[in-house]
Amino acid sequence: MTPLDKVGEFGLIGRIQQTVELTQPSTILGIGDDAAILAPAAGQELVISTDLLVEGVHFDLTFCPLKHLGYKAVAVNVSDIAAMNAVPTQIVVAVSIPPRFTVEAVEELFEGVKLACEAYNVDLVGGDTTGSRAGLTISVTALGQVEAGKAVRRSGAGPNDLLCVTGDLGGAYLGLQVLEREKQVWQADPESQPELDKYPYVLQRQLRPEARMDVIHELRELGVVPTSMIDVSDGLASEVLHLCQASGTGARIFTENLPIANPTLEVAGEFNLDPIMCMLNGGEDYELLFTVPLADHAKLKNHPDITIIGHMVEKSEGANLITKAGQPVPLKAQGFSHF
Amino acid sequence: MTPLDKVGEFGLIGRIQQTVELTQPSTILGIGDDAAILAPAAGQELVISTDLLVEGVHFDLTFCPLKHLGYKAVAVNVSDIAAMNAVPTQIVVAVSIPPRFTVEAVEELFEGVKLACEAYNVDLVGGDTTGSRAGLTISVTALGQVEAGKAVRRSGAGPNDLLCVTGDLGGAYLGLQVLEREKQVWQADPESQPELDKYPYVLQRQLRPEARMDVIHELRELGVVPTSMIDVSDGLASEVLHLCQASGTGARIFTENLPIANPTLEVAGEFNLDPIMCMLNGGEDYELLFTVPLADHAKLKNHPDITIIGHMVEKSEGANLITKAGQPVPLKAQGFSHF
Repeated sequence: MTPLDKVGEFGLIGRIQQTVELTQPSTILGIGDDAAILAPAAGQELVISTDLLVEGVHFDLTFCPLKHLGYKAVAVNVSDIAAMNAVPTQIVVAVSIPPRFTVEAVEELFEGVKLACEAYNVDLVGGDTTGSRAGLTISVTALGQVEAGKAVRRSGAGPNDLLCVTGDLGGAYLGLQVLEREKQVWQADPESQPELDKYPYVLQRQLRPEARMDVIHELRELGVVPTSMIDVSDGLASEVLHLCQASGTGARIFTENLPIANPTLEVAGEFNLDPIMCMLNGGEDYELLFTVPLADHAKLKNHPDITIIGHMVEKSEGANLITKAGQPVPLKAQGFSHF
Repeated sequence: MTPLDKVGEFGLIGRIQQTVELTQPSTILGIGDDAAILAPAAGQELVISTDLLVEGVHFDLTFCPLKHLGYKAVAVNVSDIAAMNAVPTQIVVAVSIPPRFTVEAVEELFEGVKLACEAYNVDLVGGDTTGSRAGLTISVTALGQVEAGKAVRRSGAGPNDLLCVTGDLGGAYLGLQVLEREKQVWQADPESQPELDKYPYVLQRQLRPEARMDVIHELRELGVVPTSMIDVSDGLASEVLHLCQASGTGARIFTENLPIANPTLEVAGEFNLDPIMCMLNGGEDYELLFTVPLADHAKLKNHPDITIIGHMVEKSEGANLITKAGQPVPLKAQGFSHF
C-alpha cells in the first residue's frame, strides 16, 4: 500500500491520467492542463449538472465498496443528463481525500469512475484532487449534448399527458435498510458475518444504480418526445410534485400501477414497511419520470421498461395518489433532508 | 438567524435562485431543472475546469469571511479559464454545509459567489447543496469560450520564447503568514484584537484574489497570442516547471526580474522570510505565467502589469533561476501538498 504523500497530488493525477481513454469526438484535450478543451458538434446545445457526494451523508464506506462509489458518483450525474433528454459526453471529477486513504484506495475509486465512463460512453476530462481533514467528498460535473431545442425540461407537461416511470421503485431505499441493519449487527458483534448474499437486487439498486440512458435512446427510436422529465432521486412523490409545480398542473397516480420488483416487495415485507411508501418516498432509484402526450399511449403501453402510472390534470385538482378503493390521497414530498 | 432545516434544501436553492441574474447570451436555462441548458456560440470551443475548496485544507473560517470565500472560489476557477486564453461564461457551484451554519451564512457565501459572477461576467447556472458531517466544502466548475483553435495550452512554448508573469508574486503567501500569526495570538489570548489593518495588501491577496481576465483582454488588444500559459496557484517555480515539462523546454528566470510589491517585501522582512523564496514557492497568487515569441518583446516590455522574467531554453539546459551574480540555481517545485 502506498501512502498518498509519497506520490503527491501531481503523481496521483498522473497515475489516473495514464489509464484514461478519450473516445468522444467533441473532446479536444483532456486531463493535464488548466482546463479541458471541448468542441461541441454544430447544432447541439449543452446541458450541465453537478452533484456532491459526502461521506457520512450520502454514503458509508463501512459497506460501500470504493469502486461502486466511483461508479455511482458518475451514474447519478449521468441520470441528470438523461433527465434532460441529452446524451452525456464529458465529466470532471473532484475528490477530497482523507489522510487514511492509500493511493490504491483512490485508484479503486477511479476504477469505478472509469467503468461508468465506459458504460455511458463519457470522457473523464479533468478534475481536482485535494486532501480532507474529515471524510471523503466526491464532486462530479457532467456535460451532455442534445439537438438544439430538444432538451426536455420539468415544465412542459399539460393536463391529460400520461405520466410514466422507467424500471421499478423502492429498491434502493430497501437496500439501504438492509445495509444499515447489518451494520448495527456488525457493530454489536464484530465477529458476525453480514448477511448480504440474500439481497442482491436491492443492494445493487442502492450501491450501484444505473442511469437510464437506455430508455432515452429507446424513446428516440420510438419517436416519443417527453413533454417533461425528471429523474427519481428524492422519491417518486417529490418528483411528481416537481413536475406539477414546474408545469403548472396537478397529477393523478394510481397505487395499482406503481412498479415494484418482487425482491423489493419481499424485503419490504421482511422490514414490515409499506411498499407504497417505499416507492413514494424512498428515493435514490435514479429512474426517469416523464410525461408524454396521450397520443403516445399505444407506443408505450407494452414497453417492458416503462410503466404508465397516471396522468397530469388541471392544477386546481392538485397532485393525488388514487388508492385501490378510488380514494385520492394528496401527495407529499418527504424527500430526505441532508441538513 | 434561520436554521437550515427550517427552509430545507429546496427552500435554500429557491432563495439563491431568486437573486441570480443571467446575462450570458449562451445561457438558455439556469438553476432549477435537472441540468442547465447552454448554447455556445458557433465557431467557439469550450473549456472546463473544476476546483474543490475544503475547510481546514484551503481555508480557515476563523479569519476568512464567507463572502470573500465565495468570491475566491469563483475567482480561482475563472483563473484557470483565463489560463487557457478563454473567456468565462458559466459556473456551477456545489456546497456541503455543516449543521452549525445558518441560512444567512449560506446566503453570505453566495453573495460572494454572485459578486464574482458580476465581476467576471459569468452566469451561475446550477449547483448542489447538501449537508456535511464535518467542515464546509465548495466545489466550483467553470465553463469558458474561446475561438476554435485559439485555446492556449501549457505545451506550446519553444526555446527563446519570452517568459512573462502578470502582477506581482508572494503576496498571498505572506497574507497567510499574517493570518496564521494573528490566529495564534488570538488563540493564546481571546481578548486580544488581531492586528490586521496594517496589512491590507497581502491580506487582500490571500483572501480575495482576482483572476487576471483583464490581461487576457489586453493581450488580445495588443495582438499578442501566448505560446503557452498557466496560472500561478502553486508557486512560480512549480508553474515554470509545468510549462517546461509540457513544452519540452528548459527555462531561465532572473532573480532581479521577479516582481514583488513593496508591501509584500515589507511583510517578508517582518517575518524574516526570503522574498525570492516567497515568490518562487508561495503560491495562491493567481497571476498568469505565459510565454510569447521573442518578436513580441516591444509590445510587452513597457506594460505596467506584465513583467518579462526570463525566457525558455533548450530542454537539456534545465530550468534555472539565475542569481544576481549570474549563478544558475535549478528550480524545484516545493508546491503545497494537501495530503
